[in-house]
Amino acid sequence: MLSVAVIGAGRIGQIHAANLAARAAETNDVRLAGICDAVEVSAATLATRLGAPVISLDEALEGKGSNAVLIASPTDTHSDFIERAAKAGKAIFCEKPVDMSAQRIEGVLEVVEAAGVPLFIGFNRRFDPNFASLRARIADGRIGEVELVTILSRDPSPPPVSYIERSGGLFRDMMIHDFDMARFLLGDEPVEVHAVGSALVDPEIGKAGDVDTAAVLLKTARGKICQISNSRRATYGYDQRVEVHGSLGLLRAGNQHETTVELATASGFTADPVQNFFLERYAQAYRLQLAAFIDCARGTTLPSPSGHDGLMAQRLADAATLSAQSGQPVRL
Amino acid sequence: MLSVAVIGAGRIGQIHAANLAARAAETNDVRLAGICDAVEVSAATLATRLGAPVISLDEALEGKGSNAVLIASPTDTHSDFIERAAKAGKAIFCEKPVDMSAQRIEGVLEVVEAAGVPLFIGFNRRFDPNFASLRARIADGRIGEVELVTILSRDPSPPPVSYIERSGGLFRDMMIHDFDMARFLLGDEPVEVHAVGSALVDPEIGKAGDVDTAAVLLKTARGKICQISNSRRATYGYDQRVEVHGSLGLLRAGNQHETTVELATASGFTADPVQNFFLERYAQAYRLQLAAFIDCARGTTLPSPSGHDGLMAQRLADAATLSAQSGQPVRL
Amino acid sequence: MLSVAVIGAGRIGQIHAANLAARAAETNDVRLAGICDAVEVSAATLATRLGAPVISLDEALEGKGSNAVLIASPTDTHSDFIERAAKAGKAIFCEKPVDMSAQRIEGVLEVVEAAGVPLFIGFNRRFDPNFASLRARIADGRIGEVELVTILSRDPSPPPVSYIERSGGLFRDMMIHDFDMARFLLGDEPVEVHAVGSALVDPEIGKAGDVDTAAVLLKTARGKICQISNSRRATYGYDQRVEVHGSLGLLRAGNQHETTVELATASGFTADPVQNFFLERYAQAYRLQLAAFIDCARGTTLPSPSGHDGLMAQRLADAATLSAQSGQPVRL
Amino acid sequence: MLSVAVIGAGRIGQIHAANLAARAAETNDVRLAGICDAVEVSAATLATRLGAPVISLDEALEGKGSNAVLIASPTDTHSDFIERAAKAGKAIFCEKPVDMSAQRIEGVLEVVEAAGVPLFIGFNRRFDPNFASLRARIADGRIGEVELVTILSRDPSPPPVSYIERSGGLFRDMMIHDFDMARFLLGDEPVEVHAVGSALVDPEIGKAGDVDTAAVLLKTARGKICQISNSRRATYGYDQRVEVHGSLGLLRAGNQHETTVELATASGFTADPVQNFFLERYAQAYRLQLAAFIDCARGTTLPSPSGHDGLMAQRLADAATLSAQSGQPVRL
Repeated sequence: MLSVAVIGAGRIGQIHAANLAARAAETNDVRLAGICDAVEVSAATLATRLGAPVISLDEALEGKGSNAVLIASPTDTHSDFIERAAKAGKAIFCEKPVDMSAQRIEGVLEVVEAAGVPLFIGFNRRFDPNFASLRARIADGRIGEVELVTILSRDPSPPPVSYIERSGGLFRDMMIHDFDMARFLLGDEPVEVHAVGSALVDPEIGKAGDVDTAAVLLKTARGKICQISNSRRATYGYDQRVEVHGSLGLLRAGNQHETTVELATASGFTADPVQNFFLERYAQAYRLQLAAFIDCARGTTLPSPSGHDGLMAQRLADAATLSAQSGQPVRL
Repeated sequence: MLSVAVIGAGRIGQIHAANLAARAAETNDVRLAGICDAVEVSAATLATRLGAPVISLDEALEGKGSNAVLIASPTDTHSDFIERAAKAGKAIFCEKPVDMSAQRIEGVLEVVEAAGVPLFIGFNRRFDPNFASLRARIADGRIGEVELVTILSRDPSPPPVSYIERSGGLFRDMMIHDFDMARFLLGDEPVEVHAVGSALVDPEIGKAGDVDTAAVLLKTARGKICQISNSRRATYGYDQRVEVHGSLGLLRAGNQHETTVELATASGFTADPVQNFFLERYAQAYRLQLAAFIDCARGTTLPSPSGHDGLMAQRLADAATLSAQSGQPVRL
Repeated sequence: MLSVAVIGAGRIGQIHAANLAARAAETNDVRLAGICDAVEVSAATLATRLGAPVISLDEALEGKGSNAVLIASPTDTHSDFIERAAKAGKAIFCEKPVDMSAQRIEGVLEVVEAAGVPLFIGFNRRFDPNFASLRARIADGRIGEVELVTILSRDPSPPPVSYIERSGGLFRDMMIHDFDMARFLLGDEPVEVHAVGSALVDPEIGKAGDVDTAAVLLKTARGKICQISNSRRATYGYDQRVEVHGSLGLLRAGNQHETTVELATASGFTADPVQNFFLERYAQAYRLQLAAFIDCARGTTLPSPSGHDGLMAQRLADAATLSAQSGQPVRL
Repeated sequence: MLSVAVIGAGRIGQIHAANLAARAAETNDVRLAGICDAVEVSAATLATRLGAPVISLDEALEGKGSNAVLIASPTDTHSDFIERAAKAGKAIFCEKPVDMSAQRIEGVLEVVEAAGVPLFIGFNRRFDPNFASLRARIADGRIGEVELVTILSRDPSPPPVSYIERSGGLFRDMMIHDFDMARFLLGDEPVEVHAVGSALVDPEIGKAGDVDTAAVLLKTARGKICQISNSRRATYGYDQRVEVHGSLGLLRAGNQHETTVELATASGFTADPVQNFFLERYAQAYRLQLAAFIDCARGTTLPSPSGHDGLMAQRLADAATLSAQSGQPVRL
């Protein structure tokens, strides 16, 4: 039986641990081996709620009590934890990003490869039923050849400047999801990155050296084009849209509104704001992502998104950061 | 060349006359022979604007200066005018309703038939591109057999009570359009009418013996069902919708909004109110209706909607009025 | 702690039992006391999956091991089971309908009242987040006074004729949900019922004495109007829509599509079929309904929908059945 | 009275001339002075249809028979014709683009300024009721400060390669409309242009040195961002969309579908393709554009879009062309 230790009892760790517990209750083929967190009370609270033990970091990464680990700790711990777990022979789920340094990721991937364990990266949006279905239809040939991809992401509101200062910047912290989505949809590796960014939402973000509004152009080896845009603030909710223009047609996937209710008055026809925020919008994606990890941890499937996907998204984020700063496109 | 006299320079007469003038300018195959109105200054104003002569009623109905007449005068003049024009051999377009008395309509139709002239009734909604396209798709078999039709009509606001008092009541004045639409879509004659109505919008309408909110069930000879509902007031505009459930699928046609603009804020996603009122919503329908009348006046097509269609709608309106008053269904 | 026995391990019983187990895992304030079913293997399979005991019917209805019972057995058992559980002092959740005989329901309600236990009826649609939100907005005065309600329900495909023969007919088996929804939205009791029905989908249904396509008009004491229509077959999925026209505006709640993906080609813009069938469409409604029952079982809230709601819906269904058969409206 | 000579009786000249004739019939305050075309039979056919005289180019540009000229001849004639008409004191409407050379446009603008006549450039999309309304709402402050503009344009199918070869390329021929729309919506001049393009639709277009799929990033002086994308082929019609993200919300304007009819079957819910092509999609825009020109020709308003707008759009098109070729952003 797959037995999974969870490292990190924060917002995202709680989601994964609860999904693991629910899955265990439902199918009896996987168990939540334990929870650890640098803040012990966080681990204890979550463990109590889910009826699971608190375990040590060493136990989570190297102990005999589990054969898989789910890493949802702070980003700067990911690389070390992956390497330790890999050497201990565990199947590994790691939240994105693997590391802020693409070079460091390369090193991690070597260790993982040497260990021969599966490494699965938490790009949750691939598992959103809408985006997953859209991609399946591309694969089915419904729009022929992909030519032009448009990805729009808007967060409801910016994180605190203190967070932004250590986030690696918008391209690495927020747009990295879109870079992965671009690769997921394009079916061809981007080789050229043009990025522009501005601090329009909050000048403090600009003072911290980052941007809050940005757009990127990608061009792939075969000439396919992708445009991505981000804003750190959308008054109407968490905006997550994708559209793909192909030789035979267009596929797009839109937002999920809070309800289907519509109110018509002299002011017009008003639909609900969109689901807000990622915990709600991607609730089902997190469950499906976990199921995919379980499959790969059991060896049924190869990890996807893989460590390599994590590396490629990071390289695109680095390139976009450089491009926005230099005002020049960056070739990969 | 088709030469059309227009009787009535009110709101709807102006529409028809202007469409005739525009058609004349565009194609040179039809002319506006003249305009007459019981209020001379109304005729004169419209005639001047369109560069057409004012003519007498006798000239319009029986004169040599035209071979067709478009009757847009008050309802209580329709029957007489149709009979006179028919005896004079003219092709006739008459606004709905032909007459408030179905019996009187039967007499008119006999006169028209004896004269052998085409009589075309102004049920404009049949020519709305949306409804016309919907019906064409039914005819193409896109939804198989029609089983259940739903028609929703809402006016933006009720007419003055003084108008309502001489209107014949909601079922004859407003819902008559929906009765024609029901027949247009069902493809089978209704044989049973259940109607309910209330004065919920304005108690003065109730005091005047009418209703402002009403719904009707029709059942046809072959068991097809149609539900119609009306309200004399909709804060969000002129609501005109149709949907047809068939053995192979559903067809529906909706409202036209003022623009395609949508505003998203924390309050939600707001689209424009719907086009308001019939002059705007059915502007294109009036042009296409005129073209259809011209075709039938020339003998290219049979009149549709015909005088018989006018009679059948009136019978349904009468039946609904009786049903709402008696609380009993009426068989036809 | 609330301890709930489940009677019935069929399709709907499985839903409720699984939701109970999940709720127990999540909050620890309720437990699944056991499962019983006339078919023992069904009870055993479900019990094993959820880690709950199989119990006898006597134990479920009268035993000390539970203080609440959830009745999801065949309709003809509901009345007896409710009475037995009521006399045993248990909080009761019963699937709709309470009984095919309104008179019998009246007797059951007397027993329940005498026992002083809460009786909660499973009209799941009230808990659909869309419909619940729509109603909350009516209560908030967003559209002023309710005047005209339109409810459209279509099943994907008819049940077997063998089921239909013992179902009590479309009005009692299918439209009963819409009657409850009508009462939920109108805020005024219907006093007049006009119904028409036809067997258009399958002539065998007609031979069995039932209809598969039907429409109803309700008029309330204060003159509000409601139109309901049903079809036993919709090629495009499980169609569930409601719209409410009020003095200040319109509220409507629509279907949930399988995904938000849209495909545009020369054939047009195609969105997904709607969710199909009720287990999917109302998955969240079932969870929220259970939470509402738990609140009422604990005495926090009064049961809603109550046994009285079950009775009133049944009376409307009886009236509609009679009206469709007699061709006359029925007053209540 | 305003008297307008039309130069060019091709597809777009016919639209303008017919709109002028219709306006003349409707309001009597403007007249179509005559039509000229290098191909005499074209001029004659159109003149006959509209009841207007054929006139010579000299008469159109410098004659006493008109006080305004509408230039719809081939692009390479625009500059000369504008200069001649300006010197003759006429109000001038000229189709876009003014000239393929921005430098030449500068010279033309000097001549126009010296002559003191109004020059109005035919960027028709500004007059589309959807886009015009969207911009009016920006001006009303409905979304606060504009931050991020997204413009998507797709043509139904590429023009012949022979046309492309002399078109100046996609950025000057097709995207120029989007550059004008970007300036119309941004409210701030772009200072940086990144462009990428590929020949994905038709390799022959690539061989001709052009692209058929392209995307551009613009950054304005104040850091606002605009992304534009174009494709020369969309199977589902003429796709014309705009969305503007601001500090207080989002405004977007979408396509107009052929009808509002929707078909639901087991394949899903299918709406019509979008209106196709510009003559249909922008029919109302052309009429409103003409009305705006008439106002400016009479001196009621200043020309907008002006010759300066024509120049700025051309400069952006030149910059994008250069950027796509060089792989480097271009600063303005």
